[in-house]
Amino acid sequence: MRQIFCVCTARVGASLSHATLAAMDTEKLQLRLREFAAERQWQRYQTPKNLAMAMVVEAAELVEIFQWMTPEESQAIASDADRHQHLGEEIADVLLYLLQIADHTGVDLVAAVERKLALNALKYPVAR
Amino acid sequence: MRQIFCVCTARVGASLSHATLAAMDTEKLQLRLREFAAERQWQRYQTPKNLAMAMVVEAAELVEIFQWMTPEESQAIASDADRHQHLGEEIADVLLYLLQIADHTGVDLVAAVERKLALNALKYPVAR
Amino acid sequence: MRQIFCVCTARVGASLSHATLAAMDTEKLQLRLREFAAERQWQRYQTPKNLAMAMVVEAAELVEIFQWMTPEESQAIASDADRHQHLGEEIADVLLYLLQIADHTGVDLVAAVERKLALNALKYPVAR
Amino acid sequence: MRQIFCVCTARVGASLSHATLAAMDTEKLQLRLREFAAERQWQRYQTPKNLAMAMVVEAAELVEIFQWMTPEESQAIASDADRHQHLGEEIADVLLYLLQIADHTGVDLVAAVERKLALNALKYPVAR
Repeated sequence: MRQIFCVCTARVGASLSHATLAAMDTEKLQLRLREFAAERQWQRYQTPKNLAMAMVVEAAELVEIFQWMTPEESQAIASDADRHQHLGEEIADVLLYLLQIADHTGVDLVAAVERKLALNALKYPVAR
Repeated sequence: MRQIFCVCTARVGASLSHATLAAMDTEKLQLRLREFAAERQWQRYQTPKNLAMAMVVEAAELVEIFQWMTPEESQAIASDADRHQHLGEEIADVLLYLLQIADHTGVDLVAAVERKLALNALKYPVAR
Repeated sequence: MRQIFCVCTARVGASLSHATLAAMDTEKLQLRLREFAAERQWQRYQTPKNLAMAMVVEAAELVEIFQWMTPEESQAIASDADRHQHLGEEIADVLLYLLQIADHTGVDLVAAVERKLALNALKYPVAR
Repeated sequence: MRQIFCVCTARVGASLSHATLAAMDTEKLQLRLREFAAERQWQRYQTPKNLAMAMVVEAAELVEIFQWMTPEESQAIASDADRHQHLGEEIADVLLYLLQIADHTGVDLVAAVERKLALNALKYPVAR
């Protein structure tokens, strides 16, 4: 098991009224998700195949929030407190399944993201 | 702009040959994604509605990797280097769109995840 | 407007206790769906973009039925009356949106299906 | 096995230059799909669980066509021959998987559609 201990110093701009943690401890979350599943004896359901299905179901629940909105209405969603909260729930749902898929298949999330950003930069060169 | 500086000490088990960063700097990634889009003049395409559609498209590309696999084959995906790498790419694709959706709609990812974990604990009490 | 009048004779095997219509009148369904939407003044929401989003949302609701099932359990779904009925509802939901998407974009469903079957036969030749 | 034989007379409006068949023989299509799979020894892959995954993958490929379009651009898709043809392919792809899911789970498509239309009429009464 790996544990990373970080002492973090926040340097914040003057406009901020409070300090918040910008980093997401993905390994800690994965551990909490494993414990949550183990407490409920859910492990046998958590094959990568099933987790992928559950993830796309949550992804579609996020899409559903916007399905009848105009593009402009979607940009203004933060002004609708209930829908904004619901959006946060669906984003979290998809993210939690991604974390579990990565955990159960040995994918290093941070490395995968960096690799993808590099691939995207090659695939979509900036026009001159 | 917020910047978090962390000095991290890795405490690793004997079986690991390298240290990796467990934290994901989501705000830094969101900034890089904004810059990537701005350099290519993509901003007008990036409404939350469109980003939600692009996100579910990537979610389905992740599902596609497993669609004909048995549950057991899905558990063994790490032994297939090409598929494992492809899985990492699709996980990253979905994650990058989630980061952009959160960024464009003012959703605090870390807070949304904590709230969802709390809601899940209430929704699925541990059986006694 | 096109109208097709068919006089149909059912030739059924001895094991059947009732005759059912095997043909689906897709144009009549599309007309009924247009009327349903018009009566409720829904037309402004029914852009192909929105209908595509609504369709994938229903597709994921169908996936959700099977997400925690084993392959064998999915094959036995007809023995669970409630789930079987729910499956029928989700299949219908996706199909109704496909009909609307085709209707709103001028896609001839029957022709598109025939073309795809021909393309599939070329793409997946039978092994000798 | 059921077979329906229909003698159809087309009554078409003056604006049409050709007669086309409006009915879709869903049972015949399901038979052709079974034969296609059997010729390629694909049956073991075709559990309802897998077919549901394949179906949502195609549904997302349909969404992908529209993901960066404005609502207006999506309404004009018929004027873009390549994209229009691609849309027809994806509509057919989803439909073919729906037919296979129904076939493998004993769902009567025509009955399911009628039931859903009735349920929708109750769920969304016309406002007075």
